[in-house]
Formats: sequence, C-alpha cells, structure tokens
Amino acid sequence: MSLRRQNLALALRCIADAKGSVSRADISARTALNKSTSSSLVDELIAAGLVRELGVTTRPAVGRPPTSLALVAEGPAGLGIEVNVDYIAACVVDLGGAVRYQHVVSQDQRGQNPQDVLRRAVNLGGAAVRAVAQSGLAPAGVGIAIPGLVDSAEGRVVLAPNLGWSDLDFAALLGSPDIAIPGGVDVVVDNEANYAALSERELLIEGSSFLYVFGEIGVGAGLVLGGDLHRGRNGWSGEIGHITVERDGPFCGCGGRGCLEQYAGQEAILRAAGAEADAGTSLGVGPTVTMIRERAERGDRAMTGALDRAGRALGLVVASVMNLLDIDRVVLGGIYKELSRQLLPVVREEVAYRYAGSRWALPQIQAAVHGSEAPALGAARSVVRQIIDDPAGWLGSPTGARGPVGLPAPAPSAQPATSNA
Amino acid sequence: MSLRRQNLALALRCIADAKGSVSRADISARTALNKSTSSSLVDELIAAGLVRELGVTTRPAVGRPPTSLALVAEGPAGLGIEVNVDYIAACVVDLGGAVRYQHVVSQDQRGQNPQDVLRRAVNLGGAAVRAVAQSGLAPAGVGIAIPGLVDSAEGRVVLAPNLGWSDLDFAALLGSPDIAIPGGVDVVVDNEANYAALSERELLIEGSSFLYVFGEIGVGAGLVLGGDLHRGRNGWSGEIGHITVERDGPFCGCGGRGCLEQYAGQEAILRAAGAEADAGTSLGVGPTVTMIRERAERGDRAMTGALDRAGRALGLVVASVMNLLDIDRVVLGGIYKELSRQLLPVVREEVAYRYAGSRWALPQIQAAVHGSEAPALGAARSVVRQIIDDPAGWLGSPTGARGPVGLPAPAPSAQPATSNA
Repeated sequence: MSLRRQNLALALRCIADAKGSVSRADISARTALNKSTSSSLVDELIAAGLVRELGVTTRPAVGRPPTSLALVAEGPAGLGIEVNVDYIAACVVDLGGAVRYQHVVSQDQRGQNPQDVLRRAVNLGGAAVRAVAQSGLAPAGVGIAIPGLVDSAEGRVVLAPNLGWSDLDFAALLGSPDIAIPGGVDVVVDNEANYAALSERELLIEGSSFLYVFGEIGVGAGLVLGGDLHRGRNGWSGEIGHITVERDGPFCGCGGRGCLEQYAGQEAILRAAGAEADAGTSLGVGPTVTMIRERAERGDRAMTGALDRAGRALGLVVASVMNLLDIDRVVLGGIYKELSRQLLPVVREEVAYRYAGSRWALPQIQAAVHGSEAPALGAARSVVRQIIDDPAGWLGSPTGARGPVGLPAPAPSAQPATSNA
Repeated sequence: MSLRRQNLALALRCIADAKGSVSRADISARTALNKSTSSSLVDELIAAGLVRELGVTTRPAVGRPPTSLALVAEGPAGLGIEVNVDYIAACVVDLGGAVRYQHVVSQDQRGQNPQDVLRRAVNLGGAAVRAVAQSGLAPAGVGIAIPGLVDSAEGRVVLAPNLGWSDLDFAALLGSPDIAIPGGVDVVVDNEANYAALSERELLIEGSSFLYVFGEIGVGAGLVLGGDLHRGRNGWSGEIGHITVERDGPFCGCGGRGCLEQYAGQEAILRAAGAEADAGTSLGVGPTVTMIRERAERGDRAMTGALDRAGRALGLVVASVMNLLDIDRVVLGGIYKELSRQLLPVVREEVAYRYAGSRWALPQIQAAVHGSEAPALGAARSVVRQIIDDPAGWLGSPTGARGPVGLPAPAPSAQPATSNA
C-alpha cells in the first residue's frame, strides 16, 4: 500500500473510531501527520462521499474554527444475508456499522433445493436494499453467511451438514439468472459463526482474543486471536459443534458421533425435552427459543434437564478450548444469548471443573450482544469494515468508482414471508 | 528498534539461514541493502564474535574475491535444562542451533523437595557448561522447561500436577545460594511442551501452523500459529493433557476427570497394560518406552490394547483441535515419537472419523524429530534464537558486553546420577 493510501485509511479510521466530535486538528494530533496533509486527506474523504462535515463545534479566540467530522450516514452500505437451517435473515448497516435495516424470516430449508433457498435469501436482501434506498444507502458489497465449512476463495460450500449440502458450487448458483444479487456488487460467502463473531464490535479491539460460540440448530464458533479472526488453513476453523462430548454418543450429520451439536444444538435441546412437536417452523425461530426459555423459567423439569445437559456439554467443550488456547473471553451467541440465564451458570461451573488453570484465572464467559441476527449483522459490517480499512482501494473498485448505486429491479419471484424479526 | 539494529539482525539472519556458502555480496543481494552497508554490518558481526570468515570461495576475474561467512562455532551458546516427572535433562547448542552436548538422567522427582530437584537439574546444566567450555562455548542464557502451567514473567510455577507442585516461586528458588546457575546468566522458565515445539526447526518457518504434542507422564502441547508460538493470556496454552476424553473418566491430578493424560500419558499406558511394576525409575525413561514398544511389537495383547486406548484418546483430542483450529500439521513428540509406529495409524483413523473436514483435507500427522530430549533442546535453541533475532540487543546486554563467559565453579553438591542418554 502506498503511503498516501495508508494515510487515507489512517485518517478515516480516526473519524470512524472517534467517540465524540473530531476535527481536522484532532486527526493531525492523533495520527502525527502534519496539519496540511491531514486536512487534504479529509478533503479527499469528503469528496469521495465517505465523510461529512457536521459544522463548527467551538469558536476559538484565534485561527480557523474547527469543523466536526463524521462518517456519512448515507452512501456506501454493507448488506449481510444469512441462510440458516430454519431461518433466513438480511441486514443493512451504514458506513459506521449502525444497523439501518434488519429482517429475520422463519423458514425450514431442509430438503429444499439450494437454488430455491438461495433465491429466497437473496430476495430478502433485495427487499432490504430497496428499503434503505430511500435513506440514500446503497450496498458496497454483500456477505452471505452459511452454517458449515465454506471455501470462501472459491465460493464453494464444502459441507453444511444441517442443511444437507455438500460440495456445492455456490458461486455458480449465485450466477443463475433468477438470483438477482442486489446492485450487482461483489459477494463473499463465509461461515456464519465467523461472521457472527464480527458482530461483537466492542470486543473486536486490537490484540483481543475470544471464542464466540454461535448456537442454533448447529453450533459453530468464530475464534478471534490477537484481534483477528483465526480462519485456519482452509477457512474451516471454529467447527466446535463437531468436537466430541461423548465418544460413543449419538451419531451426527458430520459422519462422527457424540458431537457437541447433539447435546447443545436447538433440536437436540428440544429432543431431550421431548418438545420437538411443540416447536419447529410452525412456531418460528424467535418463538422456538422463547418457548424453550419460558418452559425452563416456569420450572418444566424436562426442559431444565435438557438445558442442563446442553450447558454441561457446552462447558466441557469451552474448557477444552481454554486448556488448548488460554484465551480471555468466551461469548455465547445465537440461541445461547436468549438462554444465557439458564446456561451461563452451568457452563461456568463445568469450565471451573475442567479447565486446568481455573483456580488462578477463569475466563470471562458472557452472553453475546446480538442473537440470531448476529451473522447477517457481522456479514454486513465486514463489508463496510473493508472500506474503512482501505478507502483508496474501495474508491478504485467498480462500486467505489461509480458512485451511488442504482436500485436493483424487484426480484423476479419474491415470495411472501412470515417475519418474526 | 532502530534501523541499524534491524539491519544488523537482517544480515545475521541471512547468514544463519544460508543453506550453502554466503558472502557479503550475497547478503547485499538478499537484503536489498547496499554493498557498503551490508559489508560494514558483517564487519560489526565479526567484531562481535558472532560471525566468522571461512576464507575465499571463488576468485572472480575482477574485484575483491568473495569471502564465505558463517556463524561462529564457539562463543555464545544456549543452555536448556528440563525438569520432568521421571527425568532431568540438559542440552547445549551453539549459535547455529546445533547440538553440542546432551544428557538425560532418569530420576523420579515425585515427592521430592523442589529445591533439591532444581539443584540437581541445575548441576546437570553446570556439568554441560563445563563439558562444552573446552570447545570455547559459553552460555548466553538458560531456558528451564517445566511440565505444567508456568508464569514466565514472574518466574512462578503455577501448577505442575504430576510433580505435585503448585504456586511455587521458582525465581526465589533459583536465587538460593546452593543453586549455582551456570555463568550467572539470565534464566527463563517456561512450559516443556512450548519449548519442545521450538525444537522442530524445519517446521518453524514463517506462517507455519502446527500442534506439537509432547507425551511423557503428562501430556502437553506447543501450538504454533502463523509461525509463532501461541502462548495465551497467561502463557498456559497447550494443556491438552487436561482436555476431557470421557467426562466420567478417571480422576486427574488437575482436579478434573477423564483427562487425556489418564489415557495417553506414560503411566496411564503402563497401568492399562498392567505393566507398572515392570517399569518406573528402576528402568529409566529411555528403557521404559523401549519396553512398551518392544512388548507391543512382539504382540503383547495387554500392551497393544493399552496403546490402542491411548491412540484413540489422542486421536479424539487431535480431532477436537482440528475442528477448532483447522491447522496444517500435528507432530507427535516425547514418548509418542518412539511409539509412532503403534500410535500413528490409530490417531489418523480417529481424526478421519471425528474431524468434520476430514473428507476434504486431512492434516499431516507425523512423528517428531526429537524424543524426550526435545524440551531441553528447544529451550537451548530459544536462547540463541534471541541473539539471532536481535544481535544488537544482546551485544548491549551484560552477557553480550562482557565477552566470553567464565566457567562456573563446580556446583557444591553434585550428585552421581544414572545416565541413559
């Protein structure tokens, strides 16, 4: 990266990270760039439509009055789409990462044609884009979250056991004429739990290390080490849903047995509580977890037993991760966020029992900020994060160069959908 | 680091990494530093006693003939000392990391006073230093490897369950008058498996990721991610010996139960084979593992059964690590190196069964280059690696500044020891 390009990113990062008001002089002070350089960088960012002037803040005795700067609230946006087992979701964030649109739709994808599933999910994204267009937002990119092993570079879904997908050429599917990617922008496919971890904005600071566990029907994790997502050799890290809890335990869709998912996944909890018939898509994703929580809260023994079983399995796996990695923090997201009152004490107890260092240093174990909407949110934020990290790179790209993006045509086969967002 | 300091390190690294002959001109070409700068850096390294000239290699038609350069074979050395449960070991390497002295002594430390144990281990190191002094080698630092959780910064052994040590102020012990640290140099205490991982020189390349499993009576691991050792928040990463294999399994010294050590540690293998009485310190560390291997090789059913049980437990844990981290390679060291013919097939089978990505990308699972001597070797190499990484820093330190280090006095209470190195 050229020096100018680096400095442009530095100035933009300064404005993006500012808690309060930030002026050209503040940027010069914080970046150690001289005043004329930082001022010209700011001018460039304003001309590019990434930064706006909020007006004069205070009027000094001498010199030019400082103008407060902020990221634009319109312009380039991030679109995140999630395909999960029993729901699809879409989310739009603005350049600052603030949620401007969010929609979760219950829908069972199992046994369905992947092309149909994807078309419905992309249509949900299209609806999101049309909804935010009136606020002047247009997507600079799309992130699609999938529950499984994803080859992001090749756009291939290698294995999504709970969807029954394997070796699926996702990039080719996205190219089919009936799937209208909003705005024709670049699309990245990645694992849902990786994206979900990126939704925890407050934790994603330089050098932070945490395990973000995302529980739905499947269980996955995003692992942040030293401030960065650890992806692994093939991008398949964080498959903690397939870590063995009992070696001769129930068989799992991955081909193994006794996997964490078979104890702590949403359907495993329902099965253990004998509550399968009372839930499912008829109820919807939000209502299902609410039903689980409410039954536990009113002391339903079958449900409290199932949650205890889930929490012990989860705690055993978290303890394994602690013994291996010795990290600062564990965050429970997805359905675990909603069930944290029931699960956290059991998980903490099991970690205290099984982590060798627990007498000296227990990790922080906490509920996530976001629930089932986290992967779509993290996917959307990863799009705008790329712009913040390299504004010059984005300005030179097709999306950045062509300015405000036009509205996509309404998708050809938009279907009515039950929302429970 | 100043530019000059960085460039000095760059030039030294160039000489250290050279496979064949390397001249001043080669260094200039490889580092992109101009000829006069790289030549003066080399002169500085020669004056500091880190690099030597091997003489003229080829005589060119014009210009100064190139002189081949190499690291010195005498001068600063690394001393590694290991305190394990049933043996102590010492190792000296020269600046190039080559082993110049190595000694393993069988000795059961359980139930012994930590100060006595440490004195014997340090005496073994003193003997090593005296042995290499005739070759002109003197330690620039000492690394001490301990099987447990170590607070390296504070010099504290937090928990070494198999030694029965906890909350031990190691730094204070090292300061006792009867413990004569060789040459009075700086001492670093760290986990044995972390050090053992650093013995795998060929694998420690930039960006490499591997899990190094070190099996003895306890089982630990060193985790290298992106070319660097992942230490974790407290430096306690790699405690895979305490990852749960069976949640209601045998109780473990760490306070938990069903830990990997209870299946795949040396004593667990002997117990499972009913061979405890036939081994132990009377036999010694090398002979014990040889006895295990020989019994298995001649088809002793109790022993092959015990090794199968150990391999399955090890494979389950390796699969868990793969599901979490998706890394390139797993290396089995310590007793597992000696038992690799028996263990590797079982471990590989279990990983293929339990790692969700195994149909697409199996990790490389291989035996380590070194066995029980790996921690002392890695500890010794970590000392010289620091000099190579920052020669100017070392030259400014007390050891570097005072030139060749004098011989330590013979330790006050050297004990006769049975060697089986």
